[in-house]
Amino acid sequence: MVELLVIKIGGNIIDDEAKLSSFLKLFAAIDGPKILVHGGGKLATQMAGKLNIHQKMVDGRRITDAETLKIITMVYAGYINKNIVAKLQSLHCNSIGLCGADGNAILAHKRIHPDIDYGFAGDIDSVNSSFLKTCLSNEMTPVIAPVTADKNGQLLNTNADTIAGEIAKAMSFLYEVELIFTFEKSGVLLDVNDDSSVIKRLDKNYYEQLKHPPSVSEGTKIFAGMIPKLDNAFAALNSGVKQVRIGKAEELDHLITGTKGTLISNEP
Amino acid sequence: MVELLVIKIGGNIIDDEAKLSSFLKLFAAIDGPKILVHGGGKLATQMAGKLNIHQKMVDGRRITDAETLKIITMVYAGYINKNIVAKLQSLHCNSIGLCGADGNAILAHKRIHPDIDYGFAGDIDSVNSSFLKTCLSNEMTPVIAPVTADKNGQLLNTNADTIAGEIAKAMSFLYEVELIFTFEKSGVLLDVNDDSSVIKRLDKNYYEQLKHPPSVSEGTKIFAGMIPKLDNAFAALNSGVKQVRIGKAEELDHLITGTKGTLISNEP
Repeated sequence: MVELLVIKIGGNIIDDEAKLSSFLKLFAAIDGPKILVHGGGKLATQMAGKLNIHQKMVDGRRITDAETLKIITMVYAGYINKNIVAKLQSLHCNSIGLCGADGNAILAHKRIHPDIDYGFAGDIDSVNSSFLKTCLSNEMTPVIAPVTADKNGQLLNTNADTIAGEIAKAMSFLYEVELIFTFEKSGVLLDVNDDSSVIKRLDKNYYEQLKHPPSVSEGTKIFAGMIPKLDNAFAALNSGVKQVRIGKAEELDHLITGTKGTLISNEP
Repeated sequence: MVELLVIKIGGNIIDDEAKLSSFLKLFAAIDGPKILVHGGGKLATQMAGKLNIHQKMVDGRRITDAETLKIITMVYAGYINKNIVAKLQSLHCNSIGLCGADGNAILAHKRIHPDIDYGFAGDIDSVNSSFLKTCLSNEMTPVIAPVTADKNGQLLNTNADTIAGEIAKAMSFLYEVELIFTFEKSGVLLDVNDDSSVIKRLDKNYYEQLKHPPSVSEGTKIFAGMIPKLDNAFAALNSGVKQVRIGKAEELDHLITGTKGTLISNEP
């Protein structure tokens, strides 16, 4: 099977023009089929602030009301997505910006929760792998914004890490998929404040140990923001994805060769 | 050659949810290959107002400064484009939302003018007809936002009528193209205030007569907003487009069959 890289770029990088630019240069230089999934960054929150739209949060999750969804669609699927695509084109990487509605790329449904109404938050039902394959076969790199749609034409706000994981899983029936999560840190860190404390290889047992340390006083070593990303990573490995790596966006080339970042592995 | 419909939908329809919805139902029901080009509507102006971004106008044209371009990209290529695509998907019309940067669909350059700096306004260099054909051959309907890009990755604000005209011309080497401009009026009107005064057939001579009436007191009969659209229409006919029709968005089905609207023709 042909190798396919599914690469997620996080919000903090998107907010930093210089970092984004060096990342995109590295990304454009990758030979072979690849898919980019991008997060949101602070621009949507800033925009909501300027427009006096109050951001509701429940348990650290933003509640996507109609006005927030509008801003997310504008900023993520419009401003950020199209600027990344234009920049990649200038770097001779033929790309195509997509949200879940485009080509029915990602079908989702409004989140169902017994107690909390998350508003227009989408949970993924399916990824249209044959459509993404068509893009790749025509030498186009899909650039995917974290906005999906349900079958009734309702756009939905969807977590970009989850999108990257679901795309990696769906594509693993057609390609040998490597999933790479890039962000502002050098990898999964033992000590959040020490960028040199990168865990080189993280297997399921070690992850469980770090998540549930024997002594409570030690606290949870893995910083909270990493947990959904790592859960996505292990779920991807369990569903046919060949390899998952986590590391710094500006070190993408080293993440691909495996010389930097954290390798997530199902095997000890 | 296979027939292809290139259909432009104007801004005023986009602002009206009910009219947009009936238009999209008619559009989705069309058999065979089709491309939709959409304008902007008032949302970008409203958004600029709320964000206190002053809109500069020269000779009735908006000057696209960096902040205005940001809003246009968000609203046109994000909010409007993705909502149209999601709605079309729910109507079982497999569509894909594009700006000029996506798949290098439309290459443009920043407008060059001896006296006026139009800012980030784009004039079209070329349309990537083979990319659009790839979409159509894969049974995807391109939905195109009025945002293009130059070869250096700079997004540019571009007139939607011009985009529709240029796409129609470029595709006429591959398809038998019919170009349809839809808007809020029933066609090209002899009397702007009388929606029943539709000119059924407008040829070049008649157009020149209406543009330059013999008696000055009569004024220009064709309302000013129509002139760029009609100039685009005649230019398209001169470059291989088979037929151009102008009429009301909610009468799209009748425009296609030729029972309503104005037929623009090079022959008397």
